[in-house]
Amino acid sequence: MNPNYFTAGPSQIHAQFANIYLQGLQLGYGSISHRSATFREIYKHTDLQLRQLLELPTSHKIFFTGSGSEIWERSISNLVEDHSFHLVNGSFSKKFFNYAKGLGKKAAAITMPHGKGFEIEEVMFPENTELICTTQNETSSGVSMPVQDLISIKNRNPNALLITDIVSIAPLSSIPYSHVDSSFFSVQKAFGMPAGLGVWIVNDRCIEKSKQLVTKNISVGPHQSLNDFDTNYDKWETPNTPNVMAIYCLGKIAEEMNQTGMANIQKEIDSKADLLYSFADNNKKYTPVVANKAHRSKSVIVLQCNNSGLLIQKLAEKNLFISNGYAEFKNQEIRIANFPTTSIAQLQILIEELAAN
Amino acid sequence: MNPNYFTAGPSQIHAQFANIYLQGLQLGYGSISHRSATFREIYKHTDLQLRQLLELPTSHKIFFTGSGSEIWERSISNLVEDHSFHLVNGSFSKKFFNYAKGLGKKAAAITMPHGKGFEIEEVMFPENTELICTTQNETSSGVSMPVQDLISIKNRNPNALLITDIVSIAPLSSIPYSHVDSSFFSVQKAFGMPAGLGVWIVNDRCIEKSKQLVTKNISVGPHQSLNDFDTNYDKWETPNTPNVMAIYCLGKIAEEMNQTGMANIQKEIDSKADLLYSFADNNKKYTPVVANKAHRSKSVIVLQCNNSGLLIQKLAEKNLFISNGYAEFKNQEIRIANFPTTSIAQLQILIEELAAN
Repeated sequence: MNPNYFTAGPSQIHAQFANIYLQGLQLGYGSISHRSATFREIYKHTDLQLRQLLELPTSHKIFFTGSGSEIWERSISNLVEDHSFHLVNGSFSKKFFNYAKGLGKKAAAITMPHGKGFEIEEVMFPENTELICTTQNETSSGVSMPVQDLISIKNRNPNALLITDIVSIAPLSSIPYSHVDSSFFSVQKAFGMPAGLGVWIVNDRCIEKSKQLVTKNISVGPHQSLNDFDTNYDKWETPNTPNVMAIYCLGKIAEEMNQTGMANIQKEIDSKADLLYSFADNNKKYTPVVANKAHRSKSVIVLQCNNSGLLIQKLAEKNLFISNGYAEFKNQEIRIANFPTTSIAQLQILIEELAAN
Repeated sequence: MNPNYFTAGPSQIHAQFANIYLQGLQLGYGSISHRSATFREIYKHTDLQLRQLLELPTSHKIFFTGSGSEIWERSISNLVEDHSFHLVNGSFSKKFFNYAKGLGKKAAAITMPHGKGFEIEEVMFPENTELICTTQNETSSGVSMPVQDLISIKNRNPNALLITDIVSIAPLSSIPYSHVDSSFFSVQKAFGMPAGLGVWIVNDRCIEKSKQLVTKNISVGPHQSLNDFDTNYDKWETPNTPNVMAIYCLGKIAEEMNQTGMANIQKEIDSKADLLYSFADNNKKYTPVVANKAHRSKSVIVLQCNNSGLLIQKLAEKNLFISNGYAEFKNQEIRIANFPTTSIAQLQILIEELAAN
């Protein structure tokens, strides 16, 4: 059997990726300038396909960075003068919070215990909040925030900007972008590409806010500030030489997803998540870390088990790769990605092996 | 004839790149974690090969970012409390200077006119300088700084840190690393790879300086701070998920260069530079922008000519690609890369076409 990567990302590479990449190389895309007509067509195509896939409104633009985690820093720098507020429900939302503190902002947070999501109506938001930072899908713990919670947050805080980290869920959840000012993801998760590209989605309000900070003489970068991105976006260019090949491949993969149709992709993801959670709920060796079904991630499923290290090793011998628990949960949890790049048949083989080991 | 990219970078892709990339994909390197044993071996191998190629002393470490321009920001953030001093001799060294100002530092600069290098003994360095920022090879104007100037700068300023931008020259010049605290480059220039990876070389003094700033509560990032890089480097890991595939490919290409031998690579680069400058010096239609032969770049050759746009178009019709002049020099200059990925025979064809047009 070929290797099957159910790792939480980098993960299984899209079956067409190698062909797409090679074709891009043959077309000379590894050699072109980011100020060439060819690059502009690539950017435009990727923007168009992602826009359709994510159902982005025209108020939102798409920019490219070196990674998703870079956007933790860029978003705080560009969108916060003093006060950010963070909904922390795992290690990655905590890192986002720490970046804000590291940038010298007066960052505040509400923190949930491991495996718990937020009862959103109970969260009190500080009045002076400029940016509310949420993580829609916590890759460390498998906690997910229902998309309607994003609408609720925005309705209660219409003046604050709302950003959501969708690194390990995009494009599998339907983000209500009319209520979400910014979001971001990496390509090495559900898009099935190697790492090396971050995607940052922002609306006009974000660009305005960044400009206000510049007017106040507050440093917003200076590398790849929102104003730089925006000025270049008008010409379908980027501030600096980006990862052109990855932008090209992302556009082609998004195009392929659009042809399959998000409804079909979602349906298969839902089926696979049901299979895996049903198995774990009915097997004494495994317990889903997220007890509340409304808060269970469908793309990163985290299970408690004994001696996860040995289990991971045994699965690897059968060419089935999963992730260990994150940080302090390394030896007592496993994390299984449910991305479009693995099939139901492959998941069933994994489940059989989980049952047998 | 296949396309020949003499563009100033992104440029001609290394003949073995597609094979190396595909092999990496087949080995699963697109799917592995940056905390896996396999990744650690990749990092170690790339570090070893680059170390040999660049003749790096053990005092210097190698870190990876999303791009070379990102390092303009990271180096200022991590190495400057107040005062940086910039030797500006073109658009890219000016951007480095502007980044320092954008980060709120008290940055000072000495600026040379277009096409002129520095008479280094005449440059007065402010006494309070913490970081001296130089650009060894100006991709915009084709001005190069002789490597012995770096030694001179360091000898006159032993207490300041010295950083040099080697984006479009690495690994073709012999940087005297014992006198240079930091340097950085991108892979889409002389290494013949697509863009998407920056390489940052720093010594212990840089890491110490960054730690001092943290102690003083000065923000050094927080994304990919030198301390984060350094702590992870001890385990051959990186702070965040990097462009693993590019790190792998860079290691393989550096290995191939080591097998060829830098002396042989340098010799061919020198021959090609001589060919091109001799042609321009003896052809009335072209004038090297850099008059002083000691300051002429051997990797990016910039020539004045009439109506460069039309010339570039005519060459493109013959599958020969060169770059236009940078920014305001767009229509009156051309830029020709002399990287190891193009052969003497290919350069001779280009020269024939330059003569004919």
